[in-house]
Amino acid sequence: MDWSGEISAAAARIAPYLRRTPVMDVVLDGLPVALKLEHLQHTGSFKARGAFNTLLGAPVPAAGLVAASGGNHGAAVAYAARTLGHEARIYVPEMAGPAKIALIERQGADLVVLPGAYANALEAARAYEAETGAAQIHAYDAPLTVAGQGTCMAEWEAQGLEVDTVLIAVGGGGLIAGALAWLGERRKVVAVEPERSCALHAALAAGQPVDVEVAGVAANALGARRIGDICFGLARGITSVTVTDAAITGAQALLWREIRQLVEPAGATALAALTSGAYVPSPGERVAVLICGGNIAPDPLT
Amino acid sequence: MDWSGEISAAAARIAPYLRRTPVMDVVLDGLPVALKLEHLQHTGSFKARGAFNTLLGAPVPAAGLVAASGGNHGAAVAYAARTLGHEARIYVPEMAGPAKIALIERQGADLVVLPGAYANALEAARAYEAETGAAQIHAYDAPLTVAGQGTCMAEWEAQGLEVDTVLIAVGGGGLIAGALAWLGERRKVVAVEPERSCALHAALAAGQPVDVEVAGVAANALGARRIGDICFGLARGITSVTVTDAAITGAQALLWREIRQLVEPAGATALAALTSGAYVPSPGERVAVLICGGNIAPDPLT
Repeated sequence: MDWSGEISAAAARIAPYLRRTPVMDVVLDGLPVALKLEHLQHTGSFKARGAFNTLLGAPVPAAGLVAASGGNHGAAVAYAARTLGHEARIYVPEMAGPAKIALIERQGADLVVLPGAYANALEAARAYEAETGAAQIHAYDAPLTVAGQGTCMAEWEAQGLEVDTVLIAVGGGGLIAGALAWLGERRKVVAVEPERSCALHAALAAGQPVDVEVAGVAANALGARRIGDICFGLARGITSVTVTDAAITGAQALLWREIRQLVEPAGATALAALTSGAYVPSPGERVAVLICGGNIAPDPLT
Repeated sequence: MDWSGEISAAAARIAPYLRRTPVMDVVLDGLPVALKLEHLQHTGSFKARGAFNTLLGAPVPAAGLVAASGGNHGAAVAYAARTLGHEARIYVPEMAGPAKIALIERQGADLVVLPGAYANALEAARAYEAETGAAQIHAYDAPLTVAGQGTCMAEWEAQGLEVDTVLIAVGGGGLIAGALAWLGERRKVVAVEPERSCALHAALAAGQPVDVEVAGVAANALGARRIGDICFGLARGITSVTVTDAAITGAQALLWREIRQLVEPAGATALAALTSGAYVPSPGERVAVLICGGNIAPDPLT
């Protein structure tokens, strides 16, 4: 796969619809760190990049789109579908929570909330796909999705990123796969997962993708049962660390206290690796943290 | 006054201590707008710029510093004093509210909370100044303060701002004075005030600074009883509009919903002029909004 070409094509394709999210240098807990504030993207996470690239990069059937989502992906697909004039059916598990469910509703999607966890929503989405011919938009393990997410790293480099190492939170692996696909060996990428939702960490330990249990404060965003194959193929040999829920909520509080950024737990997970010491930079190593999602619950304004 | 020289000197002086805050182009309510996210500054508002410039631009007496503040200025002075190794006594009125009082406490200042409104705090600060010889750090009507706040506009231009018009919220007038001092006639500046705290609007109507009553959702940040003389001198003839509290809280909600920025009412006041129609850009007029403060109450994480 010519990832560089795919990601460049994605960037050109989605540019009219996406925000160029801001970047900033700060010192947090005494450590200089470069941030990309990707939670300022449409619908509050990087997911809009992959959604637009998927809708623009392949024909959309008359039956429209279907997605299963713990929240952020569903909101992104719903937003992209509405923007581009397609129908979208979104299945969401109750565990997504009221704030994310309301977010998807605001995008005007045909939303179905199902009891239980993500697997139930995925099953329903597959049944809908089979019945109607709607196109299933995968949340992370599809080339157009990965290429779309890769535009985030490409954009960051175009904004003048000057670091040795980038820390990225991992759920199903779409975002980090896009970053690895773009960067190749150019910079070090550190995968950060909650210790209770660590599909990539478990896969790297097992030598192949394996099913994991998912739980914890970031589960509705990072709780993939199994790492995507594309991600696993790109991530062999990378540094992978895990963080506790307490480290995640501590990093969340730090981001609010120090730079007035209120993000969801997944959005603070990569930073938590630094603040908890799960990843300790070498002397002189310059680090960056991708803030990937801001859809916190409960919604502070409702 | 050579404002251009003063502001350039301020920028050089404070650069090691301040953040270069991010900028971003977005479409809000259908209107393209350039934003500067100055609420990501140290202590959550632009006030740190003036505070550092004041402390670095003139000798600080052994007795240290004293300030009276509705919250943001006090936090900035406390932070700058601690960073530069000075003592700081901060008088705060109860109306500042628990979130801002806690923010000042976290900066390690010698904090005194007084009943009632800002005037009581100012009286106490003046008494402390007379008694101890501490330097009073004015919140807005001093050349070093205005020059410090002016670095925000200078920085924004250096970041590539391409607009005709900049909307800025006004309390005592330090921020807008700095912007006017930097820009001269180069761009149009629109002053935006809450209709219940509009010291500049009233002064422009009266032809001179006059006392006004202050109230409303942004009063602890924008509720100056009288516009600063420096601001008034620079602001003659500019466009001045007022907005309702409902317009301000509506703009606050929009910023959270659309770009996941949770700001205090003062931080959303300039945007409220656009979203409420208090200021309607001409066809083709490109506009920018300065987001000046993020210290919302109640604190969403406590």
